[in-house]
Amino acid sequence: MQTEYIVLSEERNVSLTVYIQAAGGEFGGVAARPVVVVIPGGGYHFCSDREADPVAFPYLKAGYQVFILRYSLNAHAEWPRPLEDYEETIGLIRSRAAKWNVAPDRIAVIGFSAGGHLAACAATMSRNRPNAAILGYPVIDGDCVHDYLPSAPDVPSAVDGKTCPCFVFATRTDNLVPVSNAVHMVDALCAQGIAFESHIYANGPHGLSTGDPSINDQAFSGRYAAWAEDSIAWLADVMGGIKSTGLTEPAFGPKINGNREKTLNLDCTMKYLLAHPGGKALLAEKLPRAEGTLPPAAADVITLRDCLKYARVDSKTVKAIEQALLAIDNTQEG
Amino acid sequence: MQTEYIVLSEERNVSLTVYIQAAGGEFGGVAARPVVVVIPGGGYHFCSDREADPVAFPYLKAGYQVFILRYSLNAHAEWPRPLEDYEETIGLIRSRAAKWNVAPDRIAVIGFSAGGHLAACAATMSRNRPNAAILGYPVIDGDCVHDYLPSAPDVPSAVDGKTCPCFVFATRTDNLVPVSNAVHMVDALCAQGIAFESHIYANGPHGLSTGDPSINDQAFSGRYAAWAEDSIAWLADVMGGIKSTGLTEPAFGPKINGNREKTLNLDCTMKYLLAHPGGKALLAEKLPRAEGTLPPAAADVITLRDCLKYARVDSKTVKAIEQALLAIDNTQEG
Amino acid sequence: MQTEYIVLSEERNVSLTVYIQAAGGEFGGVAARPVVVVIPGGGYHFCSDREADPVAFPYLKAGYQVFILRYSLNAHAEWPRPLEDYEETIGLIRSRAAKWNVAPDRIAVIGFSAGGHLAACAATMSRNRPNAAILGYPVIDGDCVHDYLPSAPDVPSAVDGKTCPCFVFATRTDNLVPVSNAVHMVDALCAQGIAFESHIYANGPHGLSTGDPSINDQAFSGRYAAWAEDSIAWLADVMGGIKSTGLTEPAFGPKINGNREKTLNLDCTMKYLLAHPGGKALLAEKLPRAEGTLPPAAADVITLRDCLKYARVDSKTVKAIEQALLAIDNTQEG
Amino acid sequence: MQTEYIVLSEERNVSLTVYIQAAGGEFGGVAARPVVVVIPGGGYHFCSDREADPVAFPYLKAGYQVFILRYSLNAHAEWPRPLEDYEETIGLIRSRAAKWNVAPDRIAVIGFSAGGHLAACAATMSRNRPNAAILGYPVIDGDCVHDYLPSAPDVPSAVDGKTCPCFVFATRTDNLVPVSNAVHMVDALCAQGIAFESHIYANGPHGLSTGDPSINDQAFSGRYAAWAEDSIAWLADVMGGIKSTGLTEPAFGPKINGNREKTLNLDCTMKYLLAHPGGKALLAEKLPRAEGTLPPAAADVITLRDCLKYARVDSKTVKAIEQALLAIDNTQEG
Repeated sequence: MQTEYIVLSEERNVSLTVYIQAAGGEFGGVAARPVVVVIPGGGYHFCSDREADPVAFPYLKAGYQVFILRYSLNAHAEWPRPLEDYEETIGLIRSRAAKWNVAPDRIAVIGFSAGGHLAACAATMSRNRPNAAILGYPVIDGDCVHDYLPSAPDVPSAVDGKTCPCFVFATRTDNLVPVSNAVHMVDALCAQGIAFESHIYANGPHGLSTGDPSINDQAFSGRYAAWAEDSIAWLADVMGGIKSTGLTEPAFGPKINGNREKTLNLDCTMKYLLAHPGGKALLAEKLPRAEGTLPPAAADVITLRDCLKYARVDSKTVKAIEQALLAIDNTQEG
Repeated sequence: MQTEYIVLSEERNVSLTVYIQAAGGEFGGVAARPVVVVIPGGGYHFCSDREADPVAFPYLKAGYQVFILRYSLNAHAEWPRPLEDYEETIGLIRSRAAKWNVAPDRIAVIGFSAGGHLAACAATMSRNRPNAAILGYPVIDGDCVHDYLPSAPDVPSAVDGKTCPCFVFATRTDNLVPVSNAVHMVDALCAQGIAFESHIYANGPHGLSTGDPSINDQAFSGRYAAWAEDSIAWLADVMGGIKSTGLTEPAFGPKINGNREKTLNLDCTMKYLLAHPGGKALLAEKLPRAEGTLPPAAADVITLRDCLKYARVDSKTVKAIEQALLAIDNTQEG
Repeated sequence: MQTEYIVLSEERNVSLTVYIQAAGGEFGGVAARPVVVVIPGGGYHFCSDREADPVAFPYLKAGYQVFILRYSLNAHAEWPRPLEDYEETIGLIRSRAAKWNVAPDRIAVIGFSAGGHLAACAATMSRNRPNAAILGYPVIDGDCVHDYLPSAPDVPSAVDGKTCPCFVFATRTDNLVPVSNAVHMVDALCAQGIAFESHIYANGPHGLSTGDPSINDQAFSGRYAAWAEDSIAWLADVMGGIKSTGLTEPAFGPKINGNREKTLNLDCTMKYLLAHPGGKALLAEKLPRAEGTLPPAAADVITLRDCLKYARVDSKTVKAIEQALLAIDNTQEG
Repeated sequence: MQTEYIVLSEERNVSLTVYIQAAGGEFGGVAARPVVVVIPGGGYHFCSDREADPVAFPYLKAGYQVFILRYSLNAHAEWPRPLEDYEETIGLIRSRAAKWNVAPDRIAVIGFSAGGHLAACAATMSRNRPNAAILGYPVIDGDCVHDYLPSAPDVPSAVDGKTCPCFVFATRTDNLVPVSNAVHMVDALCAQGIAFESHIYANGPHGLSTGDPSINDQAFSGRYAAWAEDSIAWLADVMGGIKSTGLTEPAFGPKINGNREKTLNLDCTMKYLLAHPGGKALLAEKLPRAEGTLPPAAADVITLRDCLKYARVDSKTVKAIEQALLAIDNTQEG
């Protein structure tokens, strides 16, 4: 493994620690590796070493390249400086993708506590959106982040349709950052139709990092220590994983349905299709009984593809419906 | 294992399937076992067999007595009939506790989908509250449950201070019951200061039950299948577990802090103590610098016990503060 | 779940406890289920309840039908009486396969301690061999079993080419049955070319059963409790698993190579092919450099299929070699 | 993390890659860390990169310092050169223990394939024995290692009373190094009374390393990938683990009984005590019924401590027996 230490700003003490694994050779099928950018916490006052290297190791084991970003703090942290540090990091990684054996469209970010705030801002507000974000006991609410950095923004109100899939974890009894922060992030992702996974473990104090006993010996619910492996499996679900023969397609992909595609499609929800003039007309012709038979709440989440499958519609008909849908524009905002 | 089939109402087709394990003999230290009541789903139209026996087995393995409740459906389900079926079940279990080797104050309930709605009602509205509730892809919102049973109540608005600890799990891409139901339950638990654990897995359709491949072969995120073992570990955290020598005390207990105890105590949060006249006076005397130094969000969750520990206050002083607190009444509503 | 209690011999107190799950209905694709026969231990003096029901539950959860055999003990156990109890059990299960929703060619047996001896005898000496055997801290050696039942046979010397795949687990510090018993079983399986999996955990006393804390509270290595789930995954590897759409083919099957097939084939090992006149001639023609280039130890285990793959031989040539091999008789004992 | 690259021999291309984590600071309670020395495989012809860095990461995550040893190969590998490389490595680590934040009496070694041979030689033949050894699909038998390095020694015949605890894993269908190598190592450890843990997984080819999909995409039994986490838990059992407050005592320690201590003691086995003149006399006086009541096989493994516990002998008597035992010399070879 090659290691580098890159100073992004001497004045502001901003740096990248870079851990680069080989590609090619015995790892021949892996021409480029996905990336995890680690953003430690520390209340925008310091960057915790316990949320730096120890977090890098599970992703290195899984085959990722890892960059640890130590960002602008204290007097240097006037917003949007920390977010600009992130933007610069992504720019640098993408510009050196070949040198660093990096797949430039497979960059995940992970942040903890205040670093989770910065990671969540990256997911929702940055120019260089990551492909996935992992948020560990994050500071999310404006009310809460202002205790640490008055200029920092509220996150839930910034969640938009371009927000990347998020993996949010915390402990319900966090004794420093109220768990309501994590809950409000999940609320916003849910409300905006963004993909997410969320684990809130019953018991444990703030700052558990990986949950390894070498880092913490406080009492916490044993399930907590599963988050790192779970997040790696989740990355394979939404961003794609790594096989020795190359990167794999994501098992499910970053979207929860097809409602935001440029044309209508089989993965649109029934409610969406029925609210779209072109979709409504098509369904009235092809599936005249569809409207009204589904409970409204179900229609909000079930896709046409699932409906056709459960109704055992033959594949030729499905294909015909799909082609008709793909011809209907879906770029007008609802 | 002894099995019984008890008809609670022939007319309404309500029944209990009872799986009772031995206590004593080779299991001598286990004089009485905790209980899990399983409530299958089915939209208040049927009770799914896939959410009945298969769910019983992991809890039986862990040493629990298991009761499967098949409750009032369809025309018989006018609210509160299903909840009354639950109340009758608990009454019966408690009245036969000795016969069935049951610890009557260690009863957990688990429900799925519409059965999750009923379990959540048990947790929040019943006379015989369970000691813990596990809610699998539950129907929670009034809007949603009314699609299936118009007389059934909204749950989030009913979460109260007596609500038992809840373990809520679902998949983000549930294609029948919107995941917002689970999210809203977590919101309400969080807002009301109730203990909970929550796992929302990224991908998977409605009705996955245990996630065993013998029950489902649809594609879903592999983490899903961990919920059953995780729920058993969680029960040990909040309700207590089982050792061969007898039942164990809960590792953490059902409360997240001491704010609801009858007197003030070390596990009250700083914000709560500072808002209480007697607590404020005591802190002003004993810890004059406490007020104002903590970020407001942190003060909302950190306990006095943790503050004293982090400040390395000596144990004699801690003891004195504790005794002073325990003499201060906390039964006046805030 | 239907339960039955069948007395096989009133005089000898031999019985079957039967746990039968539904097939069809909501489990429609599962027309017949595989079977696990549980054989508790107890030194041929009693049948331990701790190795009966608690062992049944994980297999029930995985979708198996489970039968608990309480076999001939003490004065009634003169060999081969216990083995005959086993034979009768298998005969009964197969004769009632339709009634009990059983796949009659997917029967696994699991035994513990002395019950592990009986299960190992079933795997190696019975007329009705199981399809797989799971042996928990088994008594295996003649020297050891004679301490409990002088007429009972030594197992390792009975391992033959028809022995089914075995999953052997034990603790290295077993304080009643020396771990050498398990080790000698593995030795014999290895020497006879039989498929197996083996887990010997560092620390733990005799009789841990499932390792659930409700059954034991003695100190043991935490890995121990993984054996049940591991054995279920192993059954899917060697015997086939269960999906909601029906039984699945085994991922790997019950054999470690093709040396025992009726004709030569690509899965024969290189050493075996080179020792077979017909195989040697074929290889000399098709792969003249094969003989002598492989280290002898490697030649003993690598198959021709792997050699051709690593040498990147084109698929047409592979097909031609395969057809030539399948025409060569392999029924003469080496 | 600090990284170093140390050339041990330029001529023979022998090197150490050193990964050193901080002690003190935020990891304040961890004054010195235990060590894992990684020895990659490659038939004494090369050192596989797939068994180097990827193996380091899980131990780094668990808090270990990691050293990767690339040892003498090919013409430079005339025995005992590779073992001397190992000896030099241990000497260097111990001499720089303070600089590298190392606990010098907590050094484990892990080797794969031919590197597993070298690690097994370290465990059995070296002057600087490790405290624990992890052997992954190792070459063990003289017959087998001679295919790769004719001067290298057979291992099983070298297992002695000073051999450290070993964790041995392999796949039963290894297609390059016969699994009999691993089995013979377990045999020898068992026969010599050495502590071990062993996992032989049913299916998988040679060279799976960590089992991460980024390293291999060949088919293998899913249990395989558990070995790394299992080995870390095992190290805590036999060598001691790491908490944030410092190193922990081993849960069980490196011995399976007290037979090799300098005096008799309660952890001697009954058979050993009865074969020792002083022990026999003491037992005849204190526990006159002990001799003859235990089955011989059980007497070989059960300790006096367990016997007294199962017989519910009072603690005062136990104490008296213990003191009498500790006065009896046990340094004469049996």
